[in-house]
Amino acid sequence: MPRSTSALTIAGSDSGGGAGIQADLKTFAAHGVHGLSAITALTAQHTRGVTAVHVPPVAFLRAQIDACLEDFDIGAVKLGMLASVEVIHAVADALQAWRPPHVVLDPVMVATSGARLLEADALDALRTRLLPMATVLTPNTPEAELLLGRPIADGAAADEAVVALRALGASAVLLKGGHLDEGDTVTDRYADATTTARWQQPRMDVDGHGTGCTLASAIAANLCLGMTAEAACGAAIGYVHVALAHGHAPGRSAVRVLDHFGARRT
Amino acid sequence: MPRSTSALTIAGSDSGGGAGIQADLKTFAAHGVHGLSAITALTAQHTRGVTAVHVPPVAFLRAQIDACLEDFDIGAVKLGMLASVEVIHAVADALQAWRPPHVVLDPVMVATSGARLLEADALDALRTRLLPMATVLTPNTPEAELLLGRPIADGAAADEAVVALRALGASAVLLKGGHLDEGDTVTDRYADATTTARWQQPRMDVDGHGTGCTLASAIAANLCLGMTAEAACGAAIGYVHVALAHGHAPGRSAVRVLDHFGARRT
Repeated sequence: MPRSTSALTIAGSDSGGGAGIQADLKTFAAHGVHGLSAITALTAQHTRGVTAVHVPPVAFLRAQIDACLEDFDIGAVKLGMLASVEVIHAVADALQAWRPPHVVLDPVMVATSGARLLEADALDALRTRLLPMATVLTPNTPEAELLLGRPIADGAAADEAVVALRALGASAVLLKGGHLDEGDTVTDRYADATTTARWQQPRMDVDGHGTGCTLASAIAANLCLGMTAEAACGAAIGYVHVALAHGHAPGRSAVRVLDHFGARRT
Repeated sequence: MPRSTSALTIAGSDSGGGAGIQADLKTFAAHGVHGLSAITALTAQHTRGVTAVHVPPVAFLRAQIDACLEDFDIGAVKLGMLASVEVIHAVADALQAWRPPHVVLDPVMVATSGARLLEADALDALRTRLLPMATVLTPNTPEAELLLGRPIADGAAADEAVVALRALGASAVLLKGGHLDEGDTVTDRYADATTTARWQQPRMDVDGHGTGCTLASAIAANLCLGMTAEAACGAAIGYVHVALAHGHAPGRSAVRVLDHFGARRT
């Protein structure tokens, strides 16, 4: 691992290992990038749900971020689950102070189950403070609907939405299509200031856990490795597809975790 | 990753990614074993030291352990930094309730710097409650001195100490020799009920961070994979050596973190 740049994830901890900083750190390692983590919230969870949550003091979150940014050469920061408006402001303050080269913002607001994970005032803080700092914003369609304040019902609406999302301030947007019914394929849509792109993958009929975290952290790792935002997104989508295909269900439910090193063994 | 067994680490979080659950989870993944984590304490730290610590409530630690053990098939549990006597009792209670097949106990008590990490009453609790549950106990020599209550000054004393440590209740003991001056090599000594063994490696002149965590979690992963305790220890020692040789210094100090996937790239 000869690279001098490290990647930092600011996100929640998933005791079950499938998502959160656990997925992020495996993803960084699989890309040959040293990973750092600042934990916003601890969850006790397994493949059937979250059983308990503990949120450390915001000042301690800031201490974790500062410890990482004052000592390591950070190539990119990935933002995942930010539990409250206070956490969002603390993270925004830290990023304004340290100005890392790249920020990948996974606006975790709606769980796969449909449960809303972020309070309404936090949505405003995320939009006004974090979106303008983001190199890449990676919403799923329910999150994009919350950010835009309107429904995204089909592919044509998603084509418009990714451009509209870009106008909210992020340098680039990757709108994930997994929640949208477009037949046998999933289409992810990309837009930056000068170009748009789309990637299609065959839809996998599996209940995957940690795909969103893994995608955003793979983009961050690819940015550390010097890729453009568009290339980082395209490579990350392919990486997640392979990792999910190689995954397995380690718990009592059918929920599948990714094999973050699956691509290395094929 | 087709194996059905997972490994659980109960340890601290190192924001700098070199040690703690971060090192453990990378080690599990490098062995093809799905990793789970119950976080005993959060640290804000980098390659020059720990800047802040936050300890979640003991009841929340128990919730993390229970969430893992009630849903996943756990092949082995690795115990690292247990911050207080209350934490040790909570972990012991949980392990008595769930009875995982294997426990690897890294009795984290003395940092590489020489700082004592565990209070005196916690030492008693660790000795009386956790040692008897351990498949493998992995002290360094300062920790072995605390457990035995006498100094270990040379190789002959270490030969006696590993047998004496075994008599304290663990099924097997791996006494790490890195702190002992035995010339150009480091000798790790092993004892179980029927056999003793030793492994020698050339001493590396580097300031490694996370070697103890990585060794214990590699032993746990190897136990998940069906190895005997002796084989698990021997393989883990070789793994750590390669990972340290492939490591790099990602921060502003000379402290080196391991490349947990280094062996795959050689």
